[in-house]
Amino acid sequence: MERDHQIAGWRDKVLFTPGPLTTSRTVKQAMLRDLGSRDYEFIDLVRDIRRRLLELGGVAESDHAAIIMQGSGTFGIEAVVSSTMPPAAKLLVIINGAYGRRIAKIASVLKIETVLLDYPEDSKPDLEEIADTLSADEGIAQVAVVHCETTTGLVNPIQEIGAVVERAGRRFFVDAMSSFGAIPLNLAECRIDYLVSSVNKCIEGVPGFSIALARKEALLSSEGYARSLSLDLLAQWKGLEANGQFRFTPPVHALMAFHQALIELEEEGGVEARAARYRDNHRALVAGMRAIGFQEYLRPEDQGYIITSFRYPSHPRFTFEEFYRLLNEKGYAIYPGKVSKADCFRIGSIGRIFQADVRDLLAAIRDTLDEMDIQMNS
Amino acid sequence: MERDHQIAGWRDKVLFTPGPLTTSRTVKQAMLRDLGSRDYEFIDLVRDIRRRLLELGGVAESDHAAIIMQGSGTFGIEAVVSSTMPPAAKLLVIINGAYGRRIAKIASVLKIETVLLDYPEDSKPDLEEIADTLSADEGIAQVAVVHCETTTGLVNPIQEIGAVVERAGRRFFVDAMSSFGAIPLNLAECRIDYLVSSVNKCIEGVPGFSIALARKEALLSSEGYARSLSLDLLAQWKGLEANGQFRFTPPVHALMAFHQALIELEEEGGVEARAARYRDNHRALVAGMRAIGFQEYLRPEDQGYIITSFRYPSHPRFTFEEFYRLLNEKGYAIYPGKVSKADCFRIGSIGRIFQADVRDLLAAIRDTLDEMDIQMNS
Repeated sequence: MERDHQIAGWRDKVLFTPGPLTTSRTVKQAMLRDLGSRDYEFIDLVRDIRRRLLELGGVAESDHAAIIMQGSGTFGIEAVVSSTMPPAAKLLVIINGAYGRRIAKIASVLKIETVLLDYPEDSKPDLEEIADTLSADEGIAQVAVVHCETTTGLVNPIQEIGAVVERAGRRFFVDAMSSFGAIPLNLAECRIDYLVSSVNKCIEGVPGFSIALARKEALLSSEGYARSLSLDLLAQWKGLEANGQFRFTPPVHALMAFHQALIELEEEGGVEARAARYRDNHRALVAGMRAIGFQEYLRPEDQGYIITSFRYPSHPRFTFEEFYRLLNEKGYAIYPGKVSKADCFRIGSIGRIFQADVRDLLAAIRDTLDEMDIQMNS
Repeated sequence: MERDHQIAGWRDKVLFTPGPLTTSRTVKQAMLRDLGSRDYEFIDLVRDIRRRLLELGGVAESDHAAIIMQGSGTFGIEAVVSSTMPPAAKLLVIINGAYGRRIAKIASVLKIETVLLDYPEDSKPDLEEIADTLSADEGIAQVAVVHCETTTGLVNPIQEIGAVVERAGRRFFVDAMSSFGAIPLNLAECRIDYLVSSVNKCIEGVPGFSIALARKEALLSSEGYARSLSLDLLAQWKGLEANGQFRFTPPVHALMAFHQALIELEEEGGVEARAARYRDNHRALVAGMRAIGFQEYLRPEDQGYIITSFRYPSHPRFTFEEFYRLLNEKGYAIYPGKVSKADCFRIGSIGRIFQADVRDLLAAIRDTLDEMDIQMNS
């Protein structure tokens, strides 16, 4: 049979992407069940997931809410923007990459007025300018920023921005899509009102939903603001609180995998230990890539350890498509670039990968450059 | 370890619900992989899924589009309502259950004006009244109806309604959530412009996304109507058409499971064969339940073979909570009722279940009534 033939000899590629990522065998095996979405056991599992998420954010159930939203991370971002912005209020979006621009785009489709602070993709935002913008415009109700800009790998100073936003008395929304679970973060210390993250990035689950953490006072004050039934953040939370069930069919299997992923995160030693592994992956990657002759797009002081953008080599025989395909054939998936003004590709350091995987990738990159007859250091 | 203890002796409950359902072992095993969301292999898999969906709807790529939307079925419904309704146009919603009401609720949150034809939950809609309503109100651009009302199990006459809608020159939107894949349906014959269905009902995949089929002419005319970035149906289709990729992270594992489920649907003999199996399940269920002394909520002529609502027995010792719990302990999950004006519970006939499972359930129901000391036929 055709399918059996395809299955024979399978070995999945190692994914050096921003997600979906290589996950553990046990995370995937957690999906080998059929569990009713209104079953007692499933309700308990969801409760435990929500408890663990608050713990990861360094906050308690007394003041904070953990919400699970169906759909990808972008759906979670849209849920916050569309259901927490008061009518006629403005959203200040701090932009230094494609994901900041996406928040602005979401607001624009929703006809929510935005004020944009648009910085170059290799630069951190200017704290003073944020403060000035807030004092100049009383109409701004909320400030949104991306924690780790997956476009480049830059990590924004959310604690410093949070302090500015708090002094101005506005709400603070952080897109922590590719950082939560691997960059230590405390919602209270960073003065975050709403945080959204992915389940298929640093927590190493499989894709299928997003997660939101909210300060209860902020969340409860958003009553009546929702511009969508599906993406209504407050209604979703109220549903989960009422009887532990979802308003609409949850992705049961992805939730079972995520629960297992959270257990494995704890077993690894929590966020600090995961951060250490990813940092080691990143260091090995950058050292190896520099030795080959590649250059990072960002300055080292702006570069996080989640994902790294490398400039294309300035060699006439280099094409990304060919480079990608040859690495793919060797069993390694890297990621295209997203930087606006430079030709880059990206390599992630996250997922169930280790320094040995990074060394294997580096060897495959060297072999691929040989095949393409590209000498980088000559 | 606690988890190992929980795992020992596991056997999943058989799910007699409207979904998520009992699925095949092989459908779940298809998720034991990590596949990059921009990988060639994944792009091919998505293409094949979309091809098979059009085939199931009896239509071709020349005139119709197959779209995959992240989130639950409700997200798919909202995607159609929010991105295909022209500004200021009205939506006529034909209602005879909770899912018709949900479509109206979605429109209301989106501030889309609705005209409602609200029928009792045990009755089919009045075709003449639909025709009259359409000719009386030029402002109605689209008509929405649920195919199989999961509230009761009633199957609405969508082909007859489609003919009325076509004569009036309006768009026709069918929520085929719990029917698609098990009730033969041809989009062209039913004059359907937009159809949304679930992946975790009659096609027997796992939850994580919804599917939409659209007539291209209608879809393309909806340019500029979207009220959401995430749920933009046309943009989602354009993205998939452009390079086979999703605009936002797809639920890779649920898609791999769904692809396998579509292959198994074909291997079973397609929609007709699946319909026959579900019909047999339903017949065995109703015969057995009547023999015990239960009554269906619907008249047999209105009752479909997907899910059946049974009235609570009028016995002082019957409580649904206790009945549910005792069945659950025996390994069978049934479903609470949703009918507004009668106390009912529901039993589904769908998923990877067979007449032997139905007989086992009936035996468990008899035992449970004995335990509750309830004599039904005395």
